[in-house]
Amino acid sequence: MAFNENSLTAIDTPAVLVDLDIAQRNIERFQRYADEHHLRLRPHIKTHKLPALAEMQLNAGAVGITCQKLSETEAMADGSSAIRDVLITYNIVGQTKLKRLRMLAERIKVSVVADSITVIQGLSATFADAGERLSVFVECNTGANRCGVGSPSAAVELATAIAKAPGLRFGGLMTYPPVNAEAAVERFMSDAKAMIEARGIPVPVVSSGGTPSMMHAAEAPITSEYRPGTYVYNDRSLVSRGVCDWDDCALTVLATVVSVPAPDRAVIDAGSKTLTSDLLGLAGYGHVLGRDDISIDQLSEEHGRLVSTGPIGLKVGDRVRIVPNHACVVTNMVDEVMVAGAGLTNPELWPVAARGRTV
Amino acid sequence: MAFNENSLTAIDTPAVLVDLDIAQRNIERFQRYADEHHLRLRPHIKTHKLPALAEMQLNAGAVGITCQKLSETEAMADGSSAIRDVLITYNIVGQTKLKRLRMLAERIKVSVVADSITVIQGLSATFADAGERLSVFVECNTGANRCGVGSPSAAVELATAIAKAPGLRFGGLMTYPPVNAEAAVERFMSDAKAMIEARGIPVPVVSSGGTPSMMHAAEAPITSEYRPGTYVYNDRSLVSRGVCDWDDCALTVLATVVSVPAPDRAVIDAGSKTLTSDLLGLAGYGHVLGRDDISIDQLSEEHGRLVSTGPIGLKVGDRVRIVPNHACVVTNMVDEVMVAGAGLTNPELWPVAARGRTV
Repeated sequence: MAFNENSLTAIDTPAVLVDLDIAQRNIERFQRYADEHHLRLRPHIKTHKLPALAEMQLNAGAVGITCQKLSETEAMADGSSAIRDVLITYNIVGQTKLKRLRMLAERIKVSVVADSITVIQGLSATFADAGERLSVFVECNTGANRCGVGSPSAAVELATAIAKAPGLRFGGLMTYPPVNAEAAVERFMSDAKAMIEARGIPVPVVSSGGTPSMMHAAEAPITSEYRPGTYVYNDRSLVSRGVCDWDDCALTVLATVVSVPAPDRAVIDAGSKTLTSDLLGLAGYGHVLGRDDISIDQLSEEHGRLVSTGPIGLKVGDRVRIVPNHACVVTNMVDEVMVAGAGLTNPELWPVAARGRTV
Repeated sequence: MAFNENSLTAIDTPAVLVDLDIAQRNIERFQRYADEHHLRLRPHIKTHKLPALAEMQLNAGAVGITCQKLSETEAMADGSSAIRDVLITYNIVGQTKLKRLRMLAERIKVSVVADSITVIQGLSATFADAGERLSVFVECNTGANRCGVGSPSAAVELATAIAKAPGLRFGGLMTYPPVNAEAAVERFMSDAKAMIEARGIPVPVVSSGGTPSMMHAAEAPITSEYRPGTYVYNDRSLVSRGVCDWDDCALTVLATVVSVPAPDRAVIDAGSKTLTSDLLGLAGYGHVLGRDDISIDQLSEEHGRLVSTGPIGLKVGDRVRIVPNHACVVTNMVDEVMVAGAGLTNPELWPVAARGRTV
């Protein structure tokens, strides 16, 4: 364990802890799978938001990174000279953002996505006089019903529009599928790819993603790049899906018991401002390590309520470590995470460079 | 409207907007109620996290402010010389925090709460040699089942312990009741106050709180101070409870439509990193102003999904304004809010001084 009793005692709570040794193991585990299946790996940094973690992913073999927002990408590019190839899986809309995208594209290799002619027109107007064409993917809806075109023929239409648009080049197809949708991904993407190629337009990349299904990524062999995010830290949602075990969870929340108002109830100093209200379909707001009998049944902003099936067995001042439901949103709550492992002598506070980057 | 079409167009999204004119009206409305009913007002700053808003509350007649955490209190005291009287409604536990509390108490008047002997012992050990005694309230559980002693006799025991403890003085009784619990508050607090006074210990203050029930605060006449938080901004949860109307909501989220992938569906650039996953018992994640037909039925971190009962009638690039379910947690997501009104010529970005202050 990268964090030992001594180092934990010195940390004020609530605190978000990251065990770099576990993160490294998680990175290597999926990189091995990707290598074995000839998948190019482009991890989504929304989970850690840390340039140093992105470097660990690149060093292990990732071909680049994925960001969701422009401002996230800027923070990552500013934070590491190793980050020079970023796919932004977002429709960039509006003059302010388009100008920032153009400036960013002059510093690093950046690709974006589009799922409408309106988005393509905005990108083209911005890059028409650029030295290098902007790579634009078509986002496809393979069942998640968020963004993305709804049919292969709609994908063909947009791919053609991109290929013709001044300043742009067609980068490929991208999807964020629901869990266990390999068959749907394979069908949609194969059809779209064949139809686009039949028009004489190459499809350089087919990009899919998501940690829950990552060990099945190769079951949609049309996929050439994969963008997992949460796999670097893992969380309670992934343990509940059987994707990993508690020992694979690199991110935990350290909290202190501040009240034991009843024999079966205790209150900790981590609430929704640390653990967040994300349930991801689960009951309760996190798992107290070593205490399967406890559920975190209620959060307010600064209080977490722990209830046990038996005596709670905690006293004021005790510390607990919690695996949150969803690691990605927890790193967005804090300016700094406490990291240990990876040869560090003592735990260190690392600023979460891309926290709060929503623009 | 403090924000007009022109000023909104210039703001990049997603953005958290605060209308200071509406906030001022909300502050005055409840201050009037408090004055009429001889309640001292001590607003909870967890909603706005802004020293300037606390000053507006103090100028209107508040006797001081409430903070939940030590680090919040430090941020508020640093941000305004008008903030000199703070009740921290939290059990302060652990040497690091106790030392910070002692330093803070040397700068401003600060009171805290306790609901166990352990907490009282820690406070007493820290303040035993202080120049001035620390005011400590006993937190009482009047039905919310979070922190607090469970009976008036337990409150007497702790009040007596505080009164005897070196460095401390008994500040009064404090509760965070559930909604519509005026009768329970009156009963618990009256019993506890009478029993404590019978031991010769004065009970200077009985403090209650919560915006949902604030217009019924006087129905528990034992209450001498009240600590509403959300009333300054209001939100969808309070509109749904009938406490206010949409026009009384000072905080809104401005978002841009980035995708319209189906006739009844649109996707905006505000997700759980802006609106948060807080449901507060509601269906959906916010109210789109002027569009009762739309529900925000799904959030991921950077996407909000809007679905309509009919045609969505939105196109890529359109802007929407959203009243979030819970205003307090939204201000914790952003480093800055965009404010307008109160005589400002143009909207201004204000740093959210106490954002992320969880320690």
